[in-house]
Amino acid sequence: MPTIILKNQQIINHQSKMIPVSEALNLIITHCKTSRVEEKSLPDALGYALAETLFAKMDTPPFDNSAMDGYAFSYALWDKKNPLKVVGEVQAGDEYRLKIGVNEAIRIFTGAPLPPDVDTVIMQEKVERNDDKIILLDENLKQGNNIRPKGSQTKKDDLALEKGQSITPAGISYLAGMGYSKVKVYAKPKVSIIITGKELVKAGDTLESGKIYESNGIGLTAALRQLNIEPVSVALVDDVSEAIEKVIKNQLSSDIVILTGGVSVGNYDLVPAALEKCGVEKIFHKVKQKPGKPFYFGTTANALIFALPGNPAAVMTCFYEYVVAAIDYFTQKTHLKSLQLPLNNDFTKNQGLTYFLKGKTTEKGVEILDSQLSYMLNSFAIADCLITLEEDKTNYKKGDVVPVLMIA
Amino acid sequence: MPTIILKNQQIINHQSKMIPVSEALNLIITHCKTSRVEEKSLPDALGYALAETLFAKMDTPPFDNSAMDGYAFSYALWDKKNPLKVVGEVQAGDEYRLKIGVNEAIRIFTGAPLPPDVDTVIMQEKVERNDDKIILLDENLKQGNNIRPKGSQTKKDDLALEKGQSITPAGISYLAGMGYSKVKVYAKPKVSIIITGKELVKAGDTLESGKIYESNGIGLTAALRQLNIEPVSVALVDDVSEAIEKVIKNQLSSDIVILTGGVSVGNYDLVPAALEKCGVEKIFHKVKQKPGKPFYFGTTANALIFALPGNPAAVMTCFYEYVVAAIDYFTQKTHLKSLQLPLNNDFTKNQGLTYFLKGKTTEKGVEILDSQLSYMLNSFAIADCLITLEEDKTNYKKGDVVPVLMIA
Repeated sequence: MPTIILKNQQIINHQSKMIPVSEALNLIITHCKTSRVEEKSLPDALGYALAETLFAKMDTPPFDNSAMDGYAFSYALWDKKNPLKVVGEVQAGDEYRLKIGVNEAIRIFTGAPLPPDVDTVIMQEKVERNDDKIILLDENLKQGNNIRPKGSQTKKDDLALEKGQSITPAGISYLAGMGYSKVKVYAKPKVSIIITGKELVKAGDTLESGKIYESNGIGLTAALRQLNIEPVSVALVDDVSEAIEKVIKNQLSSDIVILTGGVSVGNYDLVPAALEKCGVEKIFHKVKQKPGKPFYFGTTANALIFALPGNPAAVMTCFYEYVVAAIDYFTQKTHLKSLQLPLNNDFTKNQGLTYFLKGKTTEKGVEILDSQLSYMLNSFAIADCLITLEEDKTNYKKGDVVPVLMIA
Repeated sequence: MPTIILKNQQIINHQSKMIPVSEALNLIITHCKTSRVEEKSLPDALGYALAETLFAKMDTPPFDNSAMDGYAFSYALWDKKNPLKVVGEVQAGDEYRLKIGVNEAIRIFTGAPLPPDVDTVIMQEKVERNDDKIILLDENLKQGNNIRPKGSQTKKDDLALEKGQSITPAGISYLAGMGYSKVKVYAKPKVSIIITGKELVKAGDTLESGKIYESNGIGLTAALRQLNIEPVSVALVDDVSEAIEKVIKNQLSSDIVILTGGVSVGNYDLVPAALEKCGVEKIFHKVKQKPGKPFYFGTTANALIFALPGNPAAVMTCFYEYVVAAIDYFTQKTHLKSLQLPLNNDFTKNQGLTYFLKGKTTEKGVEILDSQLSYMLNSFAIADCLITLEEDKTNYKKGDVVPVLMIA
């Protein structure tokens, strides 16, 4: 069992030291659980990643049909000189089963199945019709024109969509057209939110002295909804060990538990101890980053626990940078786009910490916004991205290309 | 009334001729209705555009508080030589109302309000504590350090968010923190979907000869859900004039009615006539584009009517290129991102038609996918964008920069 011992040793090391962002991300991904597979009916599968490779159930189109409103005839049975006599009509959804003869044609409409032996359609705009006779005016007409052959989109048993493909609206239309009504997808995780802090007051209540309005629960709920995940529960709990433990125990059946507040080293930072009492194994505590340095991550057999520092900008940043990575793994889908963009302004930072900065993309690149402190949200509210500035660098110049995570 | 007469004349001209894509888009926007305003509670306002400019209801933070776990004291009442005596404690959510004296300090935790006269906090890591005495070890400590002053994020009556701002998760957290629990936003439109075609069979039913599976209703439902809009209704109706008229009349109380099928010039293309009978004013019929040439657009006093050709790729393309533009106007929000990207491959097209092509973005630019015909969805299912190729151009070369509409 040498590798397990090694792993445990590493974990013990992580308990005692502040780790770099890249290591934190690696440890989170290492501990991500295998995704569940579930069946979804169309169009409820929208936005999920396919958990199976799909093959065409049938030929599409299922029969040769007309691509135009016009007249269908047999190229071989036309003498290429005389007009054609219109002997019948077929519209989409109907059938014309009689065989046609020499110099005969069938009035046909877009999507209608071709009658037997018919192999060519001429557009209605390119004939001159007199009573039941049509003169063909299309000099370029060739045998087989204006036909959509059976199976010309996909043949039965062709690859339809690959496992892992994210299901788009057009993908849903495509699958429905082949007779699919449900598909297997990677499930979304069950996510619980636990907000700690005796200073927090619910919106609408009176704000007594020393208190602030609760905003992390409502912000995280919105951030999950942005990924089309509705949290299982949002609990608001006082800074009392027993109360925190009770709420945690109730939520450990979720796949992901997000806590906010109480993870620093102050006397009232009760969350890490409460998690330990609930059987959560600490993977790391504290990351070399700004904001969100006291970020804690732990696991149980079934759940990932993200305990985020309570400052609202740290909460939202850690959600986008770490929790979304775990959700991506669980759902086998990349929810937020990563770009490399040039900075629009200079920036000086401290060494030894990765900075995640609120940014706004422009035509020229990305602008670092004001108000970057972890308790401020005024610029985060209008940001469309988070910019990563490296741990070891201190001076960034306009034009330097930086990693950007799009969040809006 | 000269301008109104001019407008009517323009509309009459449009009725008889195929118009360019840019003109079609302009006519749609010209006829878009004023957006409704509605109040939404947080976080249900996520993704909406603000219909009011919001000002800070209060100072945030609402009181001076500590940015650190540490010790708070009055810089003026410290003799700069002796240790401080810890005479009390205050945690977040509590208050400490007594005044402190010379060389006294209060144990304080992050977010806790500052006691009276206290103006400086020293981090707990930077003191040596012996019983109730602390020796200050921070040589760089200055008066006012580690304090978050009242109103330092936003002062009461400061601009909080501007009208038109799209509400993000961080924006919701920001507003909640200032005591907002609801905001006025531009409503989403009520959208009805009407699918016509006697050839259409619902998924799960037996596919008789000449029939195909209905896919447009389910695809449009998914496309609306992608914009977080649930259609009011999805009706499937036969190619029978009276039936089509009845369904249209039932749905004209919606803001937007999307029809598919029955808009060409064939004998069973009953939709334009049915719309006219229902009092819909035709604005244009037929656009110089591929796919979706027979696209029809009309209005009533309250509704916009998009009658799309029935081919599934034409339906999805017209939805993204035109219906989304109207939804954007209605909601005062840009839902899909427009980019300019270099082509990864050459392409030759016919002159006189704007082409909308299924594409996939890559690191280098955008690739034109195979299977571009209007009845094929196999490439649309994996496309992440639509590429616009201009009406008058015929030859595109690798590297040519083209407009791209991101759809996934």
